[in-house]
Amino acid sequence: MQFSSSLLEDAVNEFARLPGIGKKTALRLVLHLVKQDAALVQSFGETVLKMRQEIKFCQRCCNISDADVCSICSNSMRRHEMVCVVENIRDVIAIESTQQYNGTYHVLGGIISPLDGVGPDQLNIELLINRVQKENVQELIFALNPTIQGDTTIYYIQKKLQPHSINITTIARGIAFGGELEYADEMTLARSLQNRVPVERFVNY
Amino acid sequence: MQFSSSLLEDAVNEFARLPGIGKKTALRLVLHLVKQDAALVQSFGETVLKMRQEIKFCQRCCNISDADVCSICSNSMRRHEMVCVVENIRDVIAIESTQQYNGTYHVLGGIISPLDGVGPDQLNIELLINRVQKENVQELIFALNPTIQGDTTIYYIQKKLQPHSINITTIARGIAFGGELEYADEMTLARSLQNRVPVERFVNY
Repeated sequence: MQFSSSLLEDAVNEFARLPGIGKKTALRLVLHLVKQDAALVQSFGETVLKMRQEIKFCQRCCNISDADVCSICSNSMRRHEMVCVVENIRDVIAIESTQQYNGTYHVLGGIISPLDGVGPDQLNIELLINRVQKENVQELIFALNPTIQGDTTIYYIQKKLQPHSINITTIARGIAFGGELEYADEMTLARSLQNRVPVERFVNY
Repeated sequence: MQFSSSLLEDAVNEFARLPGIGKKTALRLVLHLVKQDAALVQSFGETVLKMRQEIKFCQRCCNISDADVCSICSNSMRRHEMVCVVENIRDVIAIESTQQYNGTYHVLGGIISPLDGVGPDQLNIELLINRVQKENVQELIFALNPTIQGDTTIYYIQKKLQPHSINITTIARGIAFGGELEYADEMTLARSLQNRVPVERFVNY
């Protein structure tokens, strides 16, 4: 691409560095900003700068936070004896959006994946084990993606926690709402048969 | 979406205002920036701010520019008697990328489209007519999208320029390279037959 302006070119290159944004999309976004009111673009740039400078990670659950402890961990209305273990912050937002969970979280920051060079030491596992030892955690709910790496991570943490007598569960795997039985893979269908639920419980939900 | 951080929420909302970026994509982009080095994000924000504050439009051709006159208009190696009329800056970049055109441009900033409330007065048509009157323009090449609105715009400008004896052409419309005849619409096929090219010229190209 040939640009008549180096300011334009620099801005396009910055946007094109974002994941999933190619040069053409970057150009479209930048030309949109050029057309906008200067004050709006000012607010865009400053919000991004402020976000990166001031954002923190919760010291307790590693979730993104404005303060040292996030709004979920500092909320006394939530059940602190229940910890939902997730891979990343997006998963926290997804579960919060269901409005069905009232416990706290622990963000691992990834899952164990030797092929990608991610071992247990790169994740926030030590912190989780410290939490279980020091706080009165009674149940750990694993909400990891149903992959080999997810299962490995669950297995590893569960082994580490064997000395502690806490309840360890994982979210149910089965046929998604609106999904079709005939297109489900055997693994999912087999698991959903194994973990079948009494109908009265199912209906109450 | 429920956010545990207002800084995160603000940044996601800013990104989600960009065209074609929804909340989920915005979140992905912002979380990517959170993971990046602070200096890289600083450079991102500052480049965007600088771009919007300092960018100018060429006083001659309305292209985006770092100075009052763009690098194409101020280049004495280019043929200033030839002006290619385009709808927007993206089209200038597309034509420049072919490296086949050595004239100058004129960016209309849109096309005449009464249904969208765009009349000739909102476009840089007056400036183009002034250019033709004052500068030694010999050929005007219209490179507008082949739509009714594009054709209307060509017709309008051509009428306005009738007193001046200049060459007015439009880029060829026909079967695209790699396209298939049987899938071409009748209009395109009919035009490509009408405007057939002697084979020797075609081969030389």
